[in-house]
Amino acid sequence: MKTLLLNADMGESFGPWVMGLDHDVMPEVDLANIACGFHASDPDVMRRTVRLAAEHSVGIGAHPAYPDLVGFGRRAMACSPAEIENLVLYQVGALAAMCRAEGTEVRYVKPHGALYNDMARTSEIFGAVARAIKAYDPTLPLMTLATRNTREIRALAQEHGITLWFEAFADRAYDGEGRLVSRAEAGAVHHDPDVILEQARRIASGLPLTASDGSDLILQADTLCVHGDNKESVASVRAIRQMLTTLQGPA
Amino acid sequence: MKTLLLNADMGESFGPWVMGLDHDVMPEVDLANIACGFHASDPDVMRRTVRLAAEHSVGIGAHPAYPDLVGFGRRAMACSPAEIENLVLYQVGALAAMCRAEGTEVRYVKPHGALYNDMARTSEIFGAVARAIKAYDPTLPLMTLATRNTREIRALAQEHGITLWFEAFADRAYDGEGRLVSRAEAGAVHHDPDVILEQARRIASGLPLTASDGSDLILQADTLCVHGDNKESVASVRAIRQMLTTLQGPA
Amino acid sequence: MKTLLLNADMGESFGPWVMGLDHDVMPEVDLANIACGFHASDPDVMRRTVRLAAEHSVGIGAHPAYPDLVGFGRRAMACSPAEIENLVLYQVGALAAMCRAEGTEVRYVKPHGALYNDMARTSEIFGAVARAIKAYDPTLPLMTLATRNTREIRALAQEHGITLWFEAFADRAYDGEGRLVSRAEAGAVHHDPDVILEQARRIASGLPLTASDGSDLILQADTLCVHGDNKESVASVRAIRQMLTTLQGPA
Amino acid sequence: MKTLLLNADMGESFGPWVMGLDHDVMPEVDLANIACGFHASDPDVMRRTVRLAAEHSVGIGAHPAYPDLVGFGRRAMACSPAEIENLVLYQVGALAAMCRAEGTEVRYVKPHGALYNDMARTSEIFGAVARAIKAYDPTLPLMTLATRNTREIRALAQEHGITLWFEAFADRAYDGEGRLVSRAEAGAVHHDPDVILEQARRIASGLPLTASDGSDLILQADTLCVHGDNKESVASVRAIRQMLTTLQGPA
Repeated sequence: MKTLLLNADMGESFGPWVMGLDHDVMPEVDLANIACGFHASDPDVMRRTVRLAAEHSVGIGAHPAYPDLVGFGRRAMACSPAEIENLVLYQVGALAAMCRAEGTEVRYVKPHGALYNDMARTSEIFGAVARAIKAYDPTLPLMTLATRNTREIRALAQEHGITLWFEAFADRAYDGEGRLVSRAEAGAVHHDPDVILEQARRIASGLPLTASDGSDLILQADTLCVHGDNKESVASVRAIRQMLTTLQGPA
Repeated sequence: MKTLLLNADMGESFGPWVMGLDHDVMPEVDLANIACGFHASDPDVMRRTVRLAAEHSVGIGAHPAYPDLVGFGRRAMACSPAEIENLVLYQVGALAAMCRAEGTEVRYVKPHGALYNDMARTSEIFGAVARAIKAYDPTLPLMTLATRNTREIRALAQEHGITLWFEAFADRAYDGEGRLVSRAEAGAVHHDPDVILEQARRIASGLPLTASDGSDLILQADTLCVHGDNKESVASVRAIRQMLTTLQGPA
Repeated sequence: MKTLLLNADMGESFGPWVMGLDHDVMPEVDLANIACGFHASDPDVMRRTVRLAAEHSVGIGAHPAYPDLVGFGRRAMACSPAEIENLVLYQVGALAAMCRAEGTEVRYVKPHGALYNDMARTSEIFGAVARAIKAYDPTLPLMTLATRNTREIRALAQEHGITLWFEAFADRAYDGEGRLVSRAEAGAVHHDPDVILEQARRIASGLPLTASDGSDLILQADTLCVHGDNKESVASVRAIRQMLTTLQGPA
Repeated sequence: MKTLLLNADMGESFGPWVMGLDHDVMPEVDLANIACGFHASDPDVMRRTVRLAAEHSVGIGAHPAYPDLVGFGRRAMACSPAEIENLVLYQVGALAAMCRAEGTEVRYVKPHGALYNDMARTSEIFGAVARAIKAYDPTLPLMTLATRNTREIRALAQEHGITLWFEAFADRAYDGEGRLVSRAEAGAVHHDPDVILEQARRIASGLPLTASDGSDLILQADTLCVHGDNKESVASVRAIRQMLTTLQGPA
């Protein structure tokens, strides 16, 4: 069985404002998506977060976003593909300098929030992100949503000469196409720890989930996204880590 | 005779706002100090400016600043040394990514505006900038003001394990210590093209200037800072380049 | 004949960056749409611009925008209606303080760029802007695009209890519905000064324009938007002012 | 006995980041210093905070700061007096619009962080803040630190035609001049709830404190600054409110 890696958004504090229990989550995950100052974080938070990831031998991913601190990068912005290419480059480079200063390096790229969603929906935006990665380091994988049918996006990635890593969610409901059910709909987010753990186990084992249309859904995922916003979610991350260790052996 | 290199601040446009005649100045200089988004510039301007520098085989320097777009990085800010170290790293990294995308790289670091001044005055701030360079790439020279006596700052640089490049100005008056006369004082800035050209020639030839206290001042400079804000200053840059070519041979 | 007022975007400089020939344009117009710091301007530019408008007895309008300096407010952002209501309020209030300090006041509101367009297209966004005005001062007119059929937007305005001012453009082509032809299409922007002046004259006289589909288009406009970006456009503004003085008498 | 009013900094959340227990503190205080978007807050947070203050009949003060979100307005910035005057005006106006939308108004001005300190130290900066208030509404009091000898600052305020409100702190040690002992020194901040409550009682009763040089210090204070950062400080605020009610009658 392929190892399912755990990834989490990290370093989303900003100036005097703290977000996330990074010290509790970092020891449990394999990959840290580190904010780069456009939707969250600042140079000091970035440096500290990179150091924390390095101490725990966690793989560091750049987590670039639209330039929108107040909206936390969650609001779509009509940026041109050239603008997106360059703002991704800028953010990856800024994080890479922090990594270099801490003796480590950027291992992958996962766009954040609205940029993550727009990239999955619009081939021009996917192309912009892909060109940034290609120009910076074509060996860096791009993390994107695992869906039912990934043929199209894999073809697009191949065309651009970049690698994809697919991620799944243990705490979100999926629709028939294997996309996340919108948070606006009832039942979109799982809150029951047992439900979350079971969904993680099924994804890790290659077993089907039940999509919102009742169909079976098998997601081919390289990594599972977990959250460390509060004590409950940290407990959930620990339970998933333990389950994965049982299934796969230690990380 | 040692070659005196010409450097200029470049890429100081921002979003829709244009500043500087970069296309006219780039062919005349050896080194471009490229703004990194904190006092000026944005990811698109940075990419374009790096490309322009690469086309003209101009050496690229990072031009980091305090985070103050509206004040153009000219207002001192009471940042801690750790904050300064990290904001320099962030900016150098962001520019380095643009360079990598354009097949070139960052060759040196020149802090901008208030950070440039504060670094020359305060050893804690010099140390912060030096640590950022050391952590990123200790072979990158740090550009700083050539003054009458540079023993102290050279000792400080050696202690931090970094190299200095000294720069002089052709259009500014110097005081007895070899520091720039404050712009607030009369006669601080030369406007006569002949005076500027003659000061450049003396600096390039190792001949003394006359300081504001009447004393002779010999500046040991690696590079001369020129400006391309308007047609007059571009004409001045061209005259200086021509003079240097006569003195030193082609760049 | 109803007087056609001239309005222009003003105060779009930012920090060290200058935009627009405000000193040349201000004497020619009736209304100044003054940027409020979100897409352009800063507190100093706002104060100066308000003072300049007051000196020329020009009516001051708040020109609020999405929070996007680098994109100059031209990129649509997926802000919620509540966010839009509050960011309009914030900007109107900031400008109102500058007006109060200069012994004058805000007379109307004209959203800028992408917010102007989104408001005309989406009733939720129109409602958000209208609620901000209603909450601040329901007597302030909201400036919006004059189109062929304004029944729907007038009904919406009435429902929200606010007044509309309709504006037309002398240098833009119109489509069959009386909307501006997209700048992406050929012929969208008129550059010939005679064509611009003639379109202004027809609008001021209540005569039909020829829309891009060949149909006659009569625009009921309260005000004509003019631009002062460069010498050519300033000349055009002066020609339009002269024509209006002949038609309508002095401003 | 004169009533000692309680004031607290409020509305210091920003975008997705929460700071302060505003809902717990608001019912206990008389005056809310509301952040205006330069060191903290955004239009949505401002609107909500103004509404909360209005619901509790708490007097609203503008809490303007240097433009430095990441540094939370705590870092001194070398802004010119004209820049300070205009950035205070801008922030007061933005908050005033939120107040107007909620049927209330700005009652006073209390600069934040580094601007608060710089204003007390530098008469040029005091003058800049005073001119902003004078230009906006000369009846708005300016809140500043109560010290041993306030003759000079009172003369300055009179010269500028504005009113002062003096504030004291229950949880800070004072030096011989009646200034706050720097946080860098041991014993600068009181943590013992009984010590804080006793200092509040002495200030409210006009009894002397013991300054760090051992001298008696009587502070003539109009208001006492309290904090609502966490549960302990909220408990302290409640104890102070109760003590004041016993001393002075209900607020």
